Amino acid sequence: MQTITTVAELRHVVARARRADKRIGFVPTMGYLHEGHLTLVEASRAQTDVTVVSIFVNPAQFGPNEDLSTYPRDFLRDQELCRDAGVAIVFAPDVQEIYPTQFETFVEPGELAKPMCGAFRPDHFRGVVTVVGKLFNIVQPDVAFFGQKDFQQCAVVRRMAIDLNLPIEIVTVQTVREPDGLALSSRNRHLSEEERRRALAISRGLFAAADKFRSGERDVEQLIAIAKAHLNTVDRLQYLELVDADTLKRAESSLRRTAALCAAAYVGSTRLIDNVILPLSTP
Amino acid sequence: MQTITTVAELRHVVARARRADKRIGFVPTMGYLHEGHLTLVEASRAQTDVTVVSIFVNPAQFGPNEDLSTYPRDFLRDQELCRDAGVAIVFAPDVQEIYPTQFETFVEPGELAKPMCGAFRPDHFRGVVTVVGKLFNIVQPDVAFFGQKDFQQCAVVRRMAIDLNLPIEIVTVQTVREPDGLALSSRNRHLSEEERRRALAISRGLFAAADKFRSGERDVEQLIAIAKAHLNTVDRLQYLELVDADTLKRAESSLRRTAALCAAAYVGSTRLIDNVILPLSTP
Repeated sequence: MQTITTVAELRHVVARARRADKRIGFVPTMGYLHEGHLTLVEASRAQTDVTVVSIFVNPAQFGPNEDLSTYPRDFLRDQELCRDAGVAIVFAPDVQEIYPTQFETFVEPGELAKPMCGAFRPDHFRGVVTVVGKLFNIVQPDVAFFGQKDFQQCAVVRRMAIDLNLPIEIVTVQTVREPDGLALSSRNRHLSEEERRRALAISRGLFAAADKFRSGERDVEQLIAIAKAHLNTVDRLQYLELVDADTLKRAESSLRRTAALCAAAYVGSTRLIDNVILPLSTP
Repeated sequence: MQTITTVAELRHVVARARRADKRIGFVPTMGYLHEGHLTLVEASRAQTDVTVVSIFVNPAQFGPNEDLSTYPRDFLRDQELCRDAGVAIVFAPDVQEIYPTQFETFVEPGELAKPMCGAFRPDHFRGVVTVVGKLFNIVQPDVAFFGQKDFQQCAVVRRMAIDLNLPIEIVTVQTVREPDGLALSSRNRHLSEEERRRALAISRGLFAAADKFRSGERDVEQLIAIAKAHLNTVDRLQYLELVDADTLKRAESSLRRTAALCAAAYVGSTRLIDNVILPLSTP
């Protein structure tokens, strides 16, 4: 495994692999890797010849009062996990390498970035698609892998790749959860034992609604109410929305197309997100 | 010469050339080609193996009250000119191919896009860098060629390519002029004979200032005043600015670094731009 910190060297190494007709897989991360990231690596290894993992805590996607400075980091451990997982290249640039002093051009997402997380984190998705767009241009992978936990991010990134004609396939991989249901997240490490117990309400609420959906419930308000009934142990529910899985627009009164039930909530000072897909075959 | 209208086919044809180790040159245009465009083609043919010319009148870079609908077009003549000039591929997509219905992700330039044309044409450079970014991703050229007449555009596009890590060399080619000095522009065809005579004031003013600069004048206000003295025959001077050639910030009282004297003016209902570079070796 190679660890590379500059754009020039990364390009050089990937170009060599491409000339040897290797298929390149890419897993962009902010580090502090967990089983969720490693599942993305596994998916990449199954579908490509060379897996590149980027580790870059992207300042552009944090708001001024958000947790950039306390975002968990452990680069040595991340490197070991990548090596053990069969990653070929870890790309770990510093901030100046990605955002040199004169940097001023952003990628600006549209309607998909406005509801849910976008409503509470202005400029978050601008930061996400800008850094992902840059990383896509640096790595030039054939396929890139994202976790479904960041459902809106997947939608915004997929749209960006289509809109900007990036010839990259975007694969979304199912959320990995703790045995009790908690969605894996680097931010979980901030939870006290007591907070972790209360955080379970999020996945429990989503699962309860998904169960009801599977047994035939299609009424949007009913499904939201079922999830919400579980959510009284979180400290602040930021949103709980049932949206069309493609457009992210709020679902109509009765579900007719595949939808996603998405939630964001604070437990203590930690913000957590999660979602479940409610699949419907379109007529 | 091949004329291609879809992204998929263009990609296919260019990928084949790249596999054969050909160097790809790209000249993005809005058509209605003139000697200026053909000089870009010549530069591309001298430096690359396969020259791609795009012909696409980009709605995203026109304001609501601008001349999108009257922008001159003559596709058959453009094709002939390209064939005669040794172009390998003409890429002429329709609007739906570049901006499908769900399109919503833009590339957003920064400070370089704010002064001069940016101040009078809000969102113009957003439209420019979005379409150029898309075309860069579609064509994936090694080098792209732009005319110096669009001086601010060159700066904004070059910045975009650096900021978004597009591995494309941007070459700026000197402005081509009529024997009497008028900068070539597709929009010149809208000028009546009488307007064309009056339009000459723009290049004459810029040249007069450049002459004075060559004989040692460094005072910013003096140089602007010399150019301005010629500009009384235009119908509306939109701007006349002496800016640092790299930052596009207004030059200080006495020139110390390479600057550009840039003008935009209406003659009749036609908006024309032009510029001259005042070169200084930086200490």
